[in-house]
Amino acid sequence: MNQLRVGMIGYKFMGKAHSNAYRALPMFFPQALKPEMAVLCGRNEQAVAEAASRLGWSEIATDWRQLVARDDIDLIDINAPSNAHKEIALAAAKAGKHIFCEKPLALSLADSREMLQAAEDAGVAHMIGFNYRFSPAVKLAKKLVESGRLGKIYHFRSWFLQDWIMDPEFPLVWRLQKDIAGSGSLGDLGAHLIDLSHYLIGDIDEVIGMSETFIKERPLAEEMTGLSATGSTNPNAPRGQVTVDDATLFMAKFADGALGSFEATRFAAGHRSTNSFEINGSLGSVKFDFERMNELEVYFNSDDEDVQGFRRVLATDPAHAYAEAWWPPGHTIGFEHTFIHEVLELTDAIREGRQPVPNFLDGVKCQAVLEAVERSIEQRRWVMIAEM
Amino acid sequence: MNQLRVGMIGYKFMGKAHSNAYRALPMFFPQALKPEMAVLCGRNEQAVAEAASRLGWSEIATDWRQLVARDDIDLIDINAPSNAHKEIALAAAKAGKHIFCEKPLALSLADSREMLQAAEDAGVAHMIGFNYRFSPAVKLAKKLVESGRLGKIYHFRSWFLQDWIMDPEFPLVWRLQKDIAGSGSLGDLGAHLIDLSHYLIGDIDEVIGMSETFIKERPLAEEMTGLSATGSTNPNAPRGQVTVDDATLFMAKFADGALGSFEATRFAAGHRSTNSFEINGSLGSVKFDFERMNELEVYFNSDDEDVQGFRRVLATDPAHAYAEAWWPPGHTIGFEHTFIHEVLELTDAIREGRQPVPNFLDGVKCQAVLEAVERSIEQRRWVMIAEM
Amino acid sequence: MNQLRVGMIGYKFMGKAHSNAYRALPMFFPQALKPEMAVLCGRNEQAVAEAASRLGWSEIATDWRQLVARDDIDLIDINAPSNAHKEIALAAAKAGKHIFCEKPLALSLADSREMLQAAEDAGVAHMIGFNYRFSPAVKLAKKLVESGRLGKIYHFRSWFLQDWIMDPEFPLVWRLQKDIAGSGSLGDLGAHLIDLSHYLIGDIDEVIGMSETFIKERPLAEEMTGLSATGSTNPNAPRGQVTVDDATLFMAKFADGALGSFEATRFAAGHRSTNSFEINGSLGSVKFDFERMNELEVYFNSDDEDVQGFRRVLATDPAHAYAEAWWPPGHTIGFEHTFIHEVLELTDAIREGRQPVPNFLDGVKCQAVLEAVERSIEQRRWVMIAEM
Amino acid sequence: MNQLRVGMIGYKFMGKAHSNAYRALPMFFPQALKPEMAVLCGRNEQAVAEAASRLGWSEIATDWRQLVARDDIDLIDINAPSNAHKEIALAAAKAGKHIFCEKPLALSLADSREMLQAAEDAGVAHMIGFNYRFSPAVKLAKKLVESGRLGKIYHFRSWFLQDWIMDPEFPLVWRLQKDIAGSGSLGDLGAHLIDLSHYLIGDIDEVIGMSETFIKERPLAEEMTGLSATGSTNPNAPRGQVTVDDATLFMAKFADGALGSFEATRFAAGHRSTNSFEINGSLGSVKFDFERMNELEVYFNSDDEDVQGFRRVLATDPAHAYAEAWWPPGHTIGFEHTFIHEVLELTDAIREGRQPVPNFLDGVKCQAVLEAVERSIEQRRWVMIAEM
Repeated sequence: MNQLRVGMIGYKFMGKAHSNAYRALPMFFPQALKPEMAVLCGRNEQAVAEAASRLGWSEIATDWRQLVARDDIDLIDINAPSNAHKEIALAAAKAGKHIFCEKPLALSLADSREMLQAAEDAGVAHMIGFNYRFSPAVKLAKKLVESGRLGKIYHFRSWFLQDWIMDPEFPLVWRLQKDIAGSGSLGDLGAHLIDLSHYLIGDIDEVIGMSETFIKERPLAEEMTGLSATGSTNPNAPRGQVTVDDATLFMAKFADGALGSFEATRFAAGHRSTNSFEINGSLGSVKFDFERMNELEVYFNSDDEDVQGFRRVLATDPAHAYAEAWWPPGHTIGFEHTFIHEVLELTDAIREGRQPVPNFLDGVKCQAVLEAVERSIEQRRWVMIAEM
Repeated sequence: MNQLRVGMIGYKFMGKAHSNAYRALPMFFPQALKPEMAVLCGRNEQAVAEAASRLGWSEIATDWRQLVARDDIDLIDINAPSNAHKEIALAAAKAGKHIFCEKPLALSLADSREMLQAAEDAGVAHMIGFNYRFSPAVKLAKKLVESGRLGKIYHFRSWFLQDWIMDPEFPLVWRLQKDIAGSGSLGDLGAHLIDLSHYLIGDIDEVIGMSETFIKERPLAEEMTGLSATGSTNPNAPRGQVTVDDATLFMAKFADGALGSFEATRFAAGHRSTNSFEINGSLGSVKFDFERMNELEVYFNSDDEDVQGFRRVLATDPAHAYAEAWWPPGHTIGFEHTFIHEVLELTDAIREGRQPVPNFLDGVKCQAVLEAVERSIEQRRWVMIAEM
Repeated sequence: MNQLRVGMIGYKFMGKAHSNAYRALPMFFPQALKPEMAVLCGRNEQAVAEAASRLGWSEIATDWRQLVARDDIDLIDINAPSNAHKEIALAAAKAGKHIFCEKPLALSLADSREMLQAAEDAGVAHMIGFNYRFSPAVKLAKKLVESGRLGKIYHFRSWFLQDWIMDPEFPLVWRLQKDIAGSGSLGDLGAHLIDLSHYLIGDIDEVIGMSETFIKERPLAEEMTGLSATGSTNPNAPRGQVTVDDATLFMAKFADGALGSFEATRFAAGHRSTNSFEINGSLGSVKFDFERMNELEVYFNSDDEDVQGFRRVLATDPAHAYAEAWWPPGHTIGFEHTFIHEVLELTDAIREGRQPVPNFLDGVKCQAVLEAVERSIEQRRWVMIAEM
Repeated sequence: MNQLRVGMIGYKFMGKAHSNAYRALPMFFPQALKPEMAVLCGRNEQAVAEAASRLGWSEIATDWRQLVARDDIDLIDINAPSNAHKEIALAAAKAGKHIFCEKPLALSLADSREMLQAAEDAGVAHMIGFNYRFSPAVKLAKKLVESGRLGKIYHFRSWFLQDWIMDPEFPLVWRLQKDIAGSGSLGDLGAHLIDLSHYLIGDIDEVIGMSETFIKERPLAEEMTGLSATGSTNPNAPRGQVTVDDATLFMAKFADGALGSFEATRFAAGHRSTNSFEINGSLGSVKFDFERMNELEVYFNSDDEDVQGFRRVLATDPAHAYAEAWWPPGHTIGFEHTFIHEVLELTDAIREGRQPVPNFLDGVKCQAVLEAVERSIEQRRWVMIAEM
């Protein structure tokens, strides 16, 4: 296989990130299978045409069913709103297309499992968009854990803090509506933390959570794109109910005995996008914060006694994942690069005839934890993942 | 009242910190009531004599009951191991002495309440040693919360991380024995976080926790002082059970609606004593870490849009609590200064005929949360503080 | 003008950065004049063909003179080694092409002036690649200075620290040879600091410097690309003289009275690429470090007395330059983005019929300071820029 | 010798710091020779009496000549304004007293040499108050340099930044008057940097500096103490000339080949007292900032390639100087502790019959550099220290 013709559905925040990844891949990873940006699909013809021109797609489509049915498409990239993921993915699998689906995989665990089953039955490659795994600094954390350099893991502590909806007049965007988004901070932000914990530590045995919706009613949105939106400035404008969580916290026990704490909130003033974790093991620790994504703080017990301390490692050296494809040491990369590395894994897996990682199984596992957390909140009790 | 004659019981880590506070107070706070370092009490006559000479106490005693009974003592300062607090405090109250008791107040909520009742019945001043309240940066956080400058509080996030017993061969010191220490990381470290949350946010409604003892057996201690100790290097030396928690996490709902997360552990490699919290309110946030105790990070939503960010405030300016008593701006203070400020509050309260803050009521409230957390762990359920 | 056909000479480190900028521009700045990546030029046909394919250029050329002469090229982009800049730029100007030249403009002030004169005489647009100006955080610093929010400027303090040639066995790459590179740390790193000072503070009146070559002889290079290279591992391999400075420091007086300090070194262990400055004004200060290029630390004297402190501003909000073209707040960008913004300025200027900034005049001014510093070192005295 | 009776002249900022050091020494360093706080001397009887009572001195004196002449005094501690140092020190030496003199040793190099000679002739112990040497983190830096763990030193970069006189209406305190203070930022702040460079790197061969007085006229001071003061709020109040430098920068070449940069300023907004240095050697680097005085950042080239980075070492472990005398790891100390360690060195040296370090010779060497810098500014040329 020398080519990979992509049909992508959705072209807002994630669609832009994916498009950039497809375009940049050949320049920085020339050995990779080259994705061809074939068709961009969206409901609004004019808008999708504008986006296709801007983002570099050759054709457009307005009916995703027709797109999925085309013979000349190898990969379906799903960036549509979360409530459309399942139907598209099932159709794509049925049509024998490889699938790259943004997170969350679906709105429910049952749906997620159905999607995984369908993809497995179809024998296609399936990937889920947990992009943060692809930060070089996160890869370094993974390497340190996996190689045993941190020893036995005792603690995983994580939080994803944002503040973009703190203004009570920020409008009721789709991300605040349960029927479209599935959940709020938990599914949007917490899902990334759960996936990172699966990646870095392993399976979770049980969880218990709590959550809150601080602002329960908001003005209806007039226009929205990405994370920004505008509502009416008329105080008498119609308002609607916020049906998702503004903040969710939970504790977890990992199968290997580690203790986990997780916090996802959109009400942490001053935190634009603090996606952060710390791991404490018997031999050392690491700390990561996505706002400083090129850095990993690393501590080793074995350092000489007088010079023990957390090291600020800038993951831009040849010894770090992906770094040689980019710039000289000390020259940093940004958010969008995680998607380029993600697409590298996707294209490598397709060429090698293996499943990319993370894939729908990781999506299912994440969804199981998300639902276990929700159940633990409703029922005010510890919930075993095995229950799900 | 122009004088305050102190009798202190215990002379190790906390005894040294309190002694230094009594000695330094008149030099830096000359307006304060001057404590007279009258009698130091401990069981080992030789050791207590050495300590008294070193720490600056005029006399020694080996029987605390006799000390408490003396007419010429105004204040009993209790630094004895936790399991001795109650008996001494009850005797001191009965004898009409003011009481300054290190935390934890007692090993149980019932005992704590008995101590509070006794002190109230006796009409004496009673204080508990939650010294971290007295960091200038913490005082600044309190001021910002109380004045409304952070708005309505949404989140309180806290962790007290240490790593001093990570070595499995570190011996079984008294702090690892439930009958003496009451509890492990929860009572030792978590208690400080709980008190800070009471101080900064307010009452807690309910909690749920989890805990772990990672290293379940250790060599018996041969010698110990403060936090350091030596065990046998003989691998066949006798070993004993660790009967307290190495790590405890819990979530809490505050009465005013804020969500709280707490973590106390002695197994966080690289963290010598990271006593840290963050508060997110509707108007801003603050962050504190005791390893950089002179600093408070402060964020305001109301800052101009292009220059919003956490400010690193060095709490050494005249605008900050206690700072003018010390050194010019930018010249920092350390751990021991929290005790000097604590003793200032104690002596001011005694002179003014009021209760110092924090006092035994704060100790009782802290103990109620500690026991609620423990019950929530045993019974694997949310526990209301009101239950206790 | 609706199109801009680019012919680029050189395809290593800077060539890759420029290529990426041309490709990314239309996706993120769709309103911009779209550059067409027409011809890539280099001496080695096979290598240039490989690079053109990878980087996305339509054609290749091996003779830059022929390229410059082509009618269908609008812009010549010069990434060749520094000693070739002048000849190419003069030819391009003569041919009426717009010119985008990497820094340093030339190896001497006289040459730089000749290039500026030629470009002016030809009436073409000319730009010089001082890319660091185009970091959003640097733009914020500029805005704060220019708007007067920092008041009168007292201090500009800057350092560009690297450590990539600390190993004495690192080979003698072209950047260490005066006849090709012009100078060492001064011209490579110091030039960026000088340009930033011109941009942020203004003209310099006089300078005095010192410099050192710590490792005076190195093995000849066997292969080199970008900043990396390999030398022979044979200790008897031929060696050559390092003819440039490993480190140069200088002090400066600005025309407006501010005091400047500058340090450029490749011998600062642990600093991969710390390109950093601080500005102190009568009303506030800013600090910048390129290793954390998304951040600007900002201080205002006018903040309330109890909450004064350096703010960590993440320049990813809509209020910051370029940010809306990229990702939501808190989602960072990297080194390569400075070039995309640079190309935006270049294309905007060409479309608007004005000179881009920074242009050859800025290159000349930078060169004047560089030579003044070198003269001050040779003659061990303060040198006025006006002398040059 | 089992006792050391101290007579101290001056009781403001430094007097308070010294008094605290004498009082704290026996408590934390019980093995040390115990200083007896015998006599406090100052011109204003009422003020000195108040200070003596507050600071813990047994007696007072108003005539330093009488004090120096007393038989029952072993050590004269000089905290008087800089212009009085010489006369007192000469008298003390003549009287055979040990001398502890605050920096600067004197207002001129000639005076300093005279003082050194007198002390040497008298055979007394002489110490100078370069207290920053006594930070545990600075001691760690010294240890790393001296043991060769940083390799050959290439760079010493230092700055002492304050902002306490930025307000143009801040009054003309004695520190701004050349006849009393000797010099401004250079002598007050730069002297500490020079001494640290002597301590950490070694002798300086030559220097060249520049300086500025940004605010040339100020209202006369009405009252002043320590670093704070109040001036008249009447805009027509009498004003006087500032006769010292607000800021001084200089470059230096060290005898061993390292390059040094130094900056001392009182006009760096946001810097209350940033006393900071960095050392880059062939094997590693260290960074220090007094505002975070418990920390030293340490980098080693020899760390594994994937985890190289500056370590934040908290110098509070048993492996660090002085730490065991204080609190458990992670519990920090402050500014005043540098003086306690300084007095420990003083008393140890006296007991051991050796010269303390730093002593008057270090004061003379510092003064030589200060004057060389001043000469280099006046004469606008490099000045060899050997000239002085």
